[in-house]
Amino acid sequence: MNSDLSSQQVKDIGEQGLLKRLQRFCPPEIIGDDAAVLETVPGQSLVVTTDVLVDGVHFSNFTTSPEDAGWRSAAANLSDLAAMGASPLGITIGLGLPGEVKVSWVERLYQGMTECLQKYKTPIVGGDVVRSPVTTLAITAFGQVNSSQIIRRSAAVVGDAIVVTGVHGASRAGLELLLHPELGENLNNEEKTTLIRAHQRPQPRLDVLPILWKILTPNSFTNAINQSCTDAINRVCTQLPIAGMDSSDGLADAIIQICRASGVGAVLECRQIPLPKTFNHWLTQEQALAYALYGGEDFELVLCLPQELALALVQYLGEGAAIAGRITAKSTVILHDEQKKFPDQVLSLSQGFQHFGQ
Amino acid sequence: MNSDLSSQQVKDIGEQGLLKRLQRFCPPEIIGDDAAVLETVPGQSLVVTTDVLVDGVHFSNFTTSPEDAGWRSAAANLSDLAAMGASPLGITIGLGLPGEVKVSWVERLYQGMTECLQKYKTPIVGGDVVRSPVTTLAITAFGQVNSSQIIRRSAAVVGDAIVVTGVHGASRAGLELLLHPELGENLNNEEKTTLIRAHQRPQPRLDVLPILWKILTPNSFTNAINQSCTDAINRVCTQLPIAGMDSSDGLADAIIQICRASGVGAVLECRQIPLPKTFNHWLTQEQALAYALYGGEDFELVLCLPQELALALVQYLGEGAAIAGRITAKSTVILHDEQKKFPDQVLSLSQGFQHFGQ
Repeated sequence: MNSDLSSQQVKDIGEQGLLKRLQRFCPPEIIGDDAAVLETVPGQSLVVTTDVLVDGVHFSNFTTSPEDAGWRSAAANLSDLAAMGASPLGITIGLGLPGEVKVSWVERLYQGMTECLQKYKTPIVGGDVVRSPVTTLAITAFGQVNSSQIIRRSAAVVGDAIVVTGVHGASRAGLELLLHPELGENLNNEEKTTLIRAHQRPQPRLDVLPILWKILTPNSFTNAINQSCTDAINRVCTQLPIAGMDSSDGLADAIIQICRASGVGAVLECRQIPLPKTFNHWLTQEQALAYALYGGEDFELVLCLPQELALALVQYLGEGAAIAGRITAKSTVILHDEQKKFPDQVLSLSQGFQHFGQ
Repeated sequence: MNSDLSSQQVKDIGEQGLLKRLQRFCPPEIIGDDAAVLETVPGQSLVVTTDVLVDGVHFSNFTTSPEDAGWRSAAANLSDLAAMGASPLGITIGLGLPGEVKVSWVERLYQGMTECLQKYKTPIVGGDVVRSPVTTLAITAFGQVNSSQIIRRSAAVVGDAIVVTGVHGASRAGLELLLHPELGENLNNEEKTTLIRAHQRPQPRLDVLPILWKILTPNSFTNAINQSCTDAINRVCTQLPIAGMDSSDGLADAIIQICRASGVGAVLECRQIPLPKTFNHWLTQEQALAYALYGGEDFELVLCLPQELALALVQYLGEGAAIAGRITAKSTVILHDEQKKFPDQVLSLSQGFQHFGQ
């Protein structure tokens, strides 16, 4: 760590440190979620999210075909919209390319993006192509949400159930199998393909939104709001009784970020975290939990909502979705084992991803 | 030029060639202007534009301070919104940075962006920071426009006057002075500073929009529409009687692009193109015209509209704005000299910017 501020370099403070320093240039009410929110006309909000992906850092031809790199980049941005409750309107793509890149590589990248986007009826509405010494992909996705249905990280209240919308750890397992095929010798081909597919073709959970709006009938909404008003003071009573984000940086990161933003804690039941079935006969429980908590890129939603709504949501979502914990009044996120084979563990972000690290 | 399609590289077809190839992935009705347009609620449209800037290609520490690089990148995107008639809502910034970049450099970049954005009340609403071997800046700007006031390239009709909102060539002259200070020996310091400032701190012409809406009174609007309906079949009569774009790639490029999109031609009067006063005693007329037509980055607006509206607009805008030509039924854009010192010249894009070129 360099103590002379004027010569401090980006690598000295890391990606998160720099983002924090740059937040002073942004209006504080706009940032802090998976995407920014701007009210455009009364009652309607625009949700905007942006990602930059660099060859060799975020994708590589070794583990990822251009089609898969395209799919994954589109899916990651759509997932950010889903995490905010927003329906996608479109995306823009900024490309930096060395002159030596094959045109067919770029077309295959766009093919993969389009395959993902078409599934969610999202058009590519524009872009820029420029010369660059390194292949760089900058995606901005924007969506629309009824202003009363914005899902924020900061809205969790004590007593909420924590719902995860699908299994965790599959994407990381798939990546490991691509990098080290020998790890998969105890798996059959179908099992390997399923995990690798989870890494290459993650599904943004936009399908969860209509289910959420369905279970939030005026009646359940009012009940939940009344309950929240009794229970907590930090959820404004006109807000949606749901907090959430996606698990793009891992399940642990998602729960910790929600708790930080909401000023609450959580208990996560380690045996309630939905894992790929394959993990049972392939990984130790520690390894399986490490993939699920810190692996990242599963692009599931992590939602905190009143118990009755959580039960309804899990029932609608079916297999894979589960109530994996609850929000507490503590300031920590605890990983708890109801079978008491492991002692309680405090989860922390330092085990998660940190780019620029020395 | 490589004839084997499968091994064709980006440099073989260039930036524009690649963009054209990628357009098949975009809905045709959305593209073709300075920014994409999406109707979000009836009567209101969202306008989105994106730019990628790469260190050493689009900016360099040699001619541009980080503050100026920030200002210019923000101004370029706001100019695209102005060109569509849209008021800015916000921008997102994606940054790719080598770990060795100084934190103070990034903060100075943001300082410059913020200075420009604040002038136009535009918030930075989010972003991404990632590790990259080359400093890369991806900006996406969002704006809003009444759907009946969208300015498109394709709406020019025969007989329209071509209005330019300010002088052209200043930005390119400023860049030349930065690169080759010896060129400025016939200029005094104030003259040099004015030209260099035009390059470093271009002003997006968002100020033109309220003037446009003012001259488009219901009366003038109806008159113009009636005139258009008599004159031409290619402007739908409910549309705004104005075509336009910004002159970020030079005045010639702007007029050619408008003519192509509208299926018309134009005559540009070379003595009516507003030039910086300094050019009179500093450059030959050929050099001055080359800077104005092909220099680029002046970020003025080029608007085609009925003569009576054009006269009103130029009067409101005052010094610098001028009617520089008219739209014709031909398929070419002709540079004409009313003093007949030069023969008519057909303007072409091949003299303009083309990146990736071999």
